[in-house]
Amino acid sequence: MDCIFCQIIAGEAQATFYRREDDFVVIKNKLTWVPVMLLGIPTTHITQQELWQSPVLPKIGKALSELGEEKTPGGFRVLSNFGRDAMQSQSHGHVHLIGGLHLGPYA
Amino acid sequence: MDCIFCQIIAGEAQATFYRREDDFVVIKNKLTWVPVMLLGIPTTHITQQELWQSPVLPKIGKALSELGEEKTPGGFRVLSNFGRDAMQSQSHGHVHLIGGLHLGPYA
Repeated sequence: MDCIFCQIIAGEAQATFYRREDDFVVIKNKLTWVPVMLLGIPTTHITQQELWQSPVLPKIGKALSELGEEKTPGGFRVLSNFGRDAMQSQSHGHVHLIGGLHLGPYA
Repeated sequence: MDCIFCQIIAGEAQATFYRREDDFVVIKNKLTWVPVMLLGIPTTHITQQELWQSPVLPKIGKALSELGEEKTPGGFRVLSNFGRDAMQSQSHGHVHLIGGLHLGPYA
């Protein structure tokens, strides 16, 4: 298993968990580009395209919007990167939450 | 009705439509910050938080990922802004798709 998200979900790699459900988890991103960086990840290894048409997406969305309100009440951005131009680094689909400062324009 | 998205959906304001379904639309953003800028919008006036826990979210996600593959095959980013720090400008929930060039880091 060479997918870091699958390893984290299987307990074979370390992460800080904020949610741990049957079909998704929310963890702390190891990156520290901005003060708050979370990752919502389905527990099954599906692509970004599959995630974005799955009923698990609004479950992840609900958890992220609750955590965003709690951890970064001034506002936050949720996003997914698809492909090279967006610098997608993991094939296992996932949604980022970033916040904790003024984020500036989204493009 | 002072919501521009509600006006567009009601046919009272102009927009270029890429999808027009009962529960959501995808339109071209009037902004031109990057070559491809689309907006996925539920037809009912719900908040960003409501959209992100709604079954309409993966329907919008499916449409956006299909349109992204078609219009910006090098990659694209999908995102929603929540609140002041993220510069959310419309209370009616919506998902942006941006692409058509190297987007750089997401934060």
